[in-house]
Amino acid sequence: MKDSITIKKEIVKYEHGLLVADEDQIVTEFPLTIILNKEEFATVVCTPAEVDELVIGFLASEGVIMSRDEVLHLNIDLDKGFAYVDLQAQITTSQQYYTKRVISSCCGKSRQFYFVNDAKTAKTSTSKLTLSPKQCFFLMNEMQQSSSVFKDTGGVHNAALCSVTEMLVNRTDIGRHNALDKIYGHCLINKVPVRDKIIVFSGRISSEVLLKAAKIGVGIVLSKSAPTDLAIKMAEDLNITAVGFIRGNSLNVYSHPERIVNK
Amino acid sequence: MKDSITIKKEIVKYEHGLLVADEDQIVTEFPLTIILNKEEFATVVCTPAEVDELVIGFLASEGVIMSRDEVLHLNIDLDKGFAYVDLQAQITTSQQYYTKRVISSCCGKSRQFYFVNDAKTAKTSTSKLTLSPKQCFFLMNEMQQSSSVFKDTGGVHNAALCSVTEMLVNRTDIGRHNALDKIYGHCLINKVPVRDKIIVFSGRISSEVLLKAAKIGVGIVLSKSAPTDLAIKMAEDLNITAVGFIRGNSLNVYSHPERIVNK
Repeated sequence: MKDSITIKKEIVKYEHGLLVADEDQIVTEFPLTIILNKEEFATVVCTPAEVDELVIGFLASEGVIMSRDEVLHLNIDLDKGFAYVDLQAQITTSQQYYTKRVISSCCGKSRQFYFVNDAKTAKTSTSKLTLSPKQCFFLMNEMQQSSSVFKDTGGVHNAALCSVTEMLVNRTDIGRHNALDKIYGHCLINKVPVRDKIIVFSGRISSEVLLKAAKIGVGIVLSKSAPTDLAIKMAEDLNITAVGFIRGNSLNVYSHPERIVNK
Repeated sequence: MKDSITIKKEIVKYEHGLLVADEDQIVTEFPLTIILNKEEFATVVCTPAEVDELVIGFLASEGVIMSRDEVLHLNIDLDKGFAYVDLQAQITTSQQYYTKRVISSCCGKSRQFYFVNDAKTAKTSTSKLTLSPKQCFFLMNEMQQSSSVFKDTGGVHNAALCSVTEMLVNRTDIGRHNALDKIYGHCLINKVPVRDKIIVFSGRISSEVLLKAAKIGVGIVLSKSAPTDLAIKMAEDLNITAVGFIRGNSLNVYSHPERIVNK
């Protein structure tokens, strides 16, 4: 069974001019196939921890469900790598647009969206939250302190849900988007209010990461790394503040800087 | 038109206790939709450079084509973000298995494969190549020296095709797999022999990265970062040498260490 985030592995190490037998801690990568109403829906390669949150968050992110209550049964077979999900409703026809491109601009939201389901599920933020730069440094530091797997293996992403003053939930995954889907699943399962929360993320803010934050419903995303141009455009459209390169005592605000204020 | 890898953007910077207007170099992220024989096939979010290589490499990697010659026409509309591909043949029924999971073990290859197309296209390496640790350090250094975008923006992955003594091709992309698909496309378009070549990669060796290397057909993958357990299992099965954590004067060999020898 797959129940750990890392495993030990015998390797050959080159050091001080010699090739010698050694041992290393390796991050686990686990293919999980989601069977939806008895049909194969998708295979997600993930870190096998908090898999229930991942499944719920992924289905919500893809626009298949809006709340946890729409799922009648969720059975996870970690031995074989399958999650069996039964929904109350039949899967709607929109599901066939899963990764279909938005061709026209008729969706009425942003022209930046490239998938139909994103245009349907990403919400424009109504958050009135503000943060000081010092609070940004504090929250980034909290997340980094709490995640030991990255230090051990150099191979995972971390996402955290924070209030202005503290880190509330921290999730780790080999897949950048999975870490965010776990946070989303956690919020849906536990009915956590999100409008006054912040997402802190270890990796780059790509369009996909920004969209996940919009789907979760937060107004501020903090990252140690850089955003992309498309992520910034989406952040501008969706009224989300994207803060990047949070390192030491400096940071960059890439969109909606009105939420970052010296307090 | 999208023709550059990065763009300039006005930002707000916090430094020395003050929030001030500044300018930053932002990496471009570009959705490219591939239309195959007049039907939508997939949307790839990429860096808009060497897009022809990306399309050819992606289609080969997905098992849709085996060689460049199978493509009758390839027209790329960079303004709108579409690549129109006409194939000689109808798309076979195997295309519907695009991201379908291998359920049984009947494919006769590895039990590690999770997608049907991977089991079909990933090749077991027959490479007899050997490398010394010093050659590994040299090639990693060559790739890092040649890629300036990462230093500017902190937001892209680099992949290089190398011989034992030099770097031959270097490709940059916001997507880790895209950088490798561009290398694959380059090899197919220019009919580059690959059995005696090496892939050098800037990011983690995930199962997806390892599979791309196997599809390209190399026997050695070098990375600055860590592999996953699934990537190591696949590397063992596919007779590929995975070398990670190439930093300073040390490195780790995770599979088939017989190819790394002190010369």
